[in-house]
Amino acid sequence: MSSRPLAQPRATAQPFVGCPMKNPSSLEELIESLRCLPGVGPKSAQRMAFHLLQRDHAGAARLGQALGRSLERIKHCERCNTFTEEDVCELCRSPRRDARLLCVVETPADMLMMEQAECFQGLYFVLMGRLSPLDGVGPKDIHLDRLIKRAEDGVVREVIVATNFTMEGEATAHYIAELLLARDIKVSRIARGLPVGGELEHVDSGTLAQAVIERRSLQAAP
Amino acid sequence: MSSRPLAQPRATAQPFVGCPMKNPSSLEELIESLRCLPGVGPKSAQRMAFHLLQRDHAGAARLGQALGRSLERIKHCERCNTFTEEDVCELCRSPRRDARLLCVVETPADMLMMEQAECFQGLYFVLMGRLSPLDGVGPKDIHLDRLIKRAEDGVVREVIVATNFTMEGEATAHYIAELLLARDIKVSRIARGLPVGGELEHVDSGTLAQAVIERRSLQAAP
Repeated sequence: MSSRPLAQPRATAQPFVGCPMKNPSSLEELIESLRCLPGVGPKSAQRMAFHLLQRDHAGAARLGQALGRSLERIKHCERCNTFTEEDVCELCRSPRRDARLLCVVETPADMLMMEQAECFQGLYFVLMGRLSPLDGVGPKDIHLDRLIKRAEDGVVREVIVATNFTMEGEATAHYIAELLLARDIKVSRIARGLPVGGELEHVDSGTLAQAVIERRSLQAAP
Repeated sequence: MSSRPLAQPRATAQPFVGCPMKNPSSLEELIESLRCLPGVGPKSAQRMAFHLLQRDHAGAARLGQALGRSLERIKHCERCNTFTEEDVCELCRSPRRDARLLCVVETPADMLMMEQAECFQGLYFVLMGRLSPLDGVGPKDIHLDRLIKRAEDGVVREVIVATNFTMEGEATAHYIAELLLARDIKVSRIARGLPVGGELEHVDSGTLAQAVIERRSLQAAP
């Protein structure tokens, strides 16, 4: 509909005389640094940066401060290895927890999920990862030396391995079990099976097969 | 497989004696403040915070600094309204751009896309949004008063409206066109139709219908 021809499209290989355009450097740096967040690619980083600068200066300032404060204050608990601001975290210090039970989880998020399920009153050990030889994550990186020392403190009676039921989580569980069994420490693994409320019709066949293999025998009510 | 009963699950309503567990406060604050990013819910915010604290202290520090620096330096170009560190952005200052053409886009990201397409040598006006009465975004919020002043500078010969072909983008284009046409300024809208390389079989019917309605007449080669 324009009555005057605009510049030719690139395909014609005609030299283009416009100046190359860039974002201002502090904006480019913000976009680039947002990409350190997991799952954030160049497009979302740009969208995030534009959003903060256009609509949420207060949020951006708060995030900047929170990053600084966390880096300064957060460290790992000496006992369970989770994130804490103290030497030993609140949960490990609690006199109400049962120190005879030690639950091994991959991440602090898993520990929170366990606590929310309100099914466990013992203490934790957080691996902060899982064995992953392909990514160069070995036993040292997930602090298995510390886990063993922790499990051999003379109080722990059972180690419950609650790593994920992924390939890597299972391999990690297997490795931990071997280490602990070799030291005569009782080890258990959380159960695999259908979820509560789960229907056979909608569960994947791998889960169903495991639920059959790991079936429990029932007893008549007394 | 455990030989000793653990705590009963929540469903039994038996009082649970564990202590309620929380993340340390600076970690909670970091998770909460990450939620100001668009598309980041509580779960991803937690994953991001754990990732930064566990694996990328350098990235977190860099992001914190970039946020501060951007907030301090980035402002809007006095002419085109895009993000810049100067009063007037580099593109608006360039003597190589054709000041008779003014392209209206919704966001700086759209402006970058236009530049990457290398199809336009004029100048821009960035609305920093679109009309959206339901969200309370009116003509003032997208700086239409400034756009009109800009289009009436005596140099601009044509305003090309390149807002999105969404409901809101189309309504914005319509509103802008009416404002400018009432002031005898020539207005055009970028074309709608099949994408380059597009196949009729795979395009949505709305696009195909528009491509038929907005068909161009062809002329015999001379």
